[in-house]
Amino acid sequence: MTVTKQTAQVTALAGGTVVTPKGFQAAGVHAGLHHSKKDIGVIVCDVPASAAAVYTQSHFQAAPLKVTQASLAVEQKLRAVIVNSSCANACTGEQGLRDAYEMRDLCAKQFGFAPHYVAVASTGVIGEHLPMEKIRAGIEKLAPGAMIANAEAFQTAILTTDTVMKHACYETKVDGKTVIVGGAAKGSGMIHPNMATMLAFITTDANISSPVLQAALRSITDVSFNQITVDGDTSTNDMVVVMASGLAGNDELTPDHPDWENFYEALRKTCEDLAKQIAKDGEGATKLIEVRVHGAKTDDEAKKIAKQIVGSNLVKTAVYGADANWGRIIGAIGYADADVDPANVDVAIGPIVMLKGSEPQPFSEEEAVAYLQNDMIVIDVDLHLGDGFGIAWGCDLTYDYVKINASYRT
Amino acid sequence: MTVTKQTAQVTALAGGTVVTPKGFQAAGVHAGLHHSKKDIGVIVCDVPASAAAVYTQSHFQAAPLKVTQASLAVEQKLRAVIVNSSCANACTGEQGLRDAYEMRDLCAKQFGFAPHYVAVASTGVIGEHLPMEKIRAGIEKLAPGAMIANAEAFQTAILTTDTVMKHACYETKVDGKTVIVGGAAKGSGMIHPNMATMLAFITTDANISSPVLQAALRSITDVSFNQITVDGDTSTNDMVVVMASGLAGNDELTPDHPDWENFYEALRKTCEDLAKQIAKDGEGATKLIEVRVHGAKTDDEAKKIAKQIVGSNLVKTAVYGADANWGRIIGAIGYADADVDPANVDVAIGPIVMLKGSEPQPFSEEEAVAYLQNDMIVIDVDLHLGDGFGIAWGCDLTYDYVKINASYRT
Repeated sequence: MTVTKQTAQVTALAGGTVVTPKGFQAAGVHAGLHHSKKDIGVIVCDVPASAAAVYTQSHFQAAPLKVTQASLAVEQKLRAVIVNSSCANACTGEQGLRDAYEMRDLCAKQFGFAPHYVAVASTGVIGEHLPMEKIRAGIEKLAPGAMIANAEAFQTAILTTDTVMKHACYETKVDGKTVIVGGAAKGSGMIHPNMATMLAFITTDANISSPVLQAALRSITDVSFNQITVDGDTSTNDMVVVMASGLAGNDELTPDHPDWENFYEALRKTCEDLAKQIAKDGEGATKLIEVRVHGAKTDDEAKKIAKQIVGSNLVKTAVYGADANWGRIIGAIGYADADVDPANVDVAIGPIVMLKGSEPQPFSEEEAVAYLQNDMIVIDVDLHLGDGFGIAWGCDLTYDYVKINASYRT
Repeated sequence: MTVTKQTAQVTALAGGTVVTPKGFQAAGVHAGLHHSKKDIGVIVCDVPASAAAVYTQSHFQAAPLKVTQASLAVEQKLRAVIVNSSCANACTGEQGLRDAYEMRDLCAKQFGFAPHYVAVASTGVIGEHLPMEKIRAGIEKLAPGAMIANAEAFQTAILTTDTVMKHACYETKVDGKTVIVGGAAKGSGMIHPNMATMLAFITTDANISSPVLQAALRSITDVSFNQITVDGDTSTNDMVVVMASGLAGNDELTPDHPDWENFYEALRKTCEDLAKQIAKDGEGATKLIEVRVHGAKTDDEAKKIAKQIVGSNLVKTAVYGADANWGRIIGAIGYADADVDPANVDVAIGPIVMLKGSEPQPFSEEEAVAYLQNDMIVIDVDLHLGDGFGIAWGCDLTYDYVKINASYRT
């Protein structure tokens, strides 16, 4: 399930969305859960799609995640995923579970699918029940289409306090056929008063079985969605769902397929692209931070350290303040549960080397401040212990983060 | 090494300091490391004191910690601890280590002690060398005395951006003799541009051996200093040092001594008191948050969950905004690496129960907002899984935290 990136041929499709791969339609409507914004969305597949999903590691998995797991347990195929924003349907007990099942069944009925072909996702306030009258009326209004406008309606319907829509699309070749992966996501925005839920919905027309898709998704999630952090909190509702229509007409993809790397890379790029968009749109954020850790004992340790650095409030505020404070980076490396040789660490912020072999290097504060004015900041760390490599993404910590999160729910 | 608190007889001494226990003197002077504040301090013991210390878990232990460990390795006794603020002497390589040894030796010479009787601590900027001319001149100015004014000079000399001095003192009886524990600490303030270093210095006139003192300190650190968090970062310089003069004249304390619990509790209260003062003085903080987790499988899991809750940026901003947002508490419990039954959790903020058996409870928003105006906020969580109990302390996350930490070093 590894990939040699050098050989993969993948092209970004700037305007692509979840309806760009063959066989998918989408829609988004305003059902009145939110006072003005679209708040219910659906992606529909023309055929039963191979499907895969990953879920939050929280002990408190919200009701829609349980329903989605129940749907996938039947035959790991999906025709639709139905999503609402404004209400997370989390910590809502038995009633919440009944509501999530009803939401699934209403969607299945609306489009004439068996209920287990429908996945459900929610994001918004915790501890409140879904307003089922509005959900019922909203689902009846859904009329999916395969146009960009429909994809945009879907992208909008899933947002909470996100400031921008998040979508990505990549194209590759498998058996000479064009295979496309498209995605939409929301995240790091927050409905008063709740947690930053991350949702991502990915479509592809690749021909691939559900188990192979599931394994690829899991491995890719570990280097994309699981490597972003806005405030270190994990939501009750986080979920990533992938549907593969198979309509590209390629021979079935497995890791042994000669073009496996092309597909894997297209899926990985789509996930990484969405993950970075989520990190960049962190609450109150003004900058995307990318931390790359080289030379760790293992990739896992590199990923862990990268995430620790990008999650440090002290690093995040320093980046916000354009302060070339490598001491805080050392601080974050210092408490990582990973092998570190304190006598041989390099740290660079952008092109500026600040620590080499653990010795502070002279650098121009002016140059450093100028670099830190960019809206993407790269931090490179080399541990000189092995070949382990990992990246993580996050954002700066600003006054607006506090403002957004300290405001009264009422 | 456990203690039944019910039987321990301990009295707080409001004006007590590190010089209240018999045999200790202190001093603090302005050596010019800081532009105006006192910046070098010393505690001296009239006799070789039994000594114990705990150190940061960071991979990057600063030079003074290495020197202190070398001193204690000789016979686990101390006559003095010398401390400077403004410069952490961390990430300073071989030169830094030489400087820390010189600082130790200068102190030893000033007071006529063997060098291994001196511990060294530093806090301040990372990656810069100690200004040794100033250190040398400063140490020559040190003239310790056993008055409160001297203790206050010491308390001031160790501060960085702390807004208040931190001290605590508790008295108890051992063999009918009065035994006193006193302490001073700094923490969570931050010299531009560095990490929040926590330093604590504890004195007692109890008669106790170094190994027994070390075991007690380690066990108490786990439920006091290790249970506070301001921003989750661990400093390169964190250290707690205890010195016991033995001048109270009690029979040597061991866990089998009939009054062991009195002494243990006096030491524990001193550490907890200092830890809470540090948490409350977190950068930009307006409120102390105490999280108590009941009913976990083990004390360790309870402590872990309590610290996770109190460390959550989302919980911290909600407390700042007086937002009774129990969903964020659930969020923080949800990602804890501990056993949780998601169907049976209680959450209360102060006297107001918000979740019972994982079912949201109706409550008055007005009452909740009124409670959240207090300057100490208590959050109680019951997991209903066992007898595990743990407390952690932290503070709210405010605009001022961002302001303090985002400002340019230059």
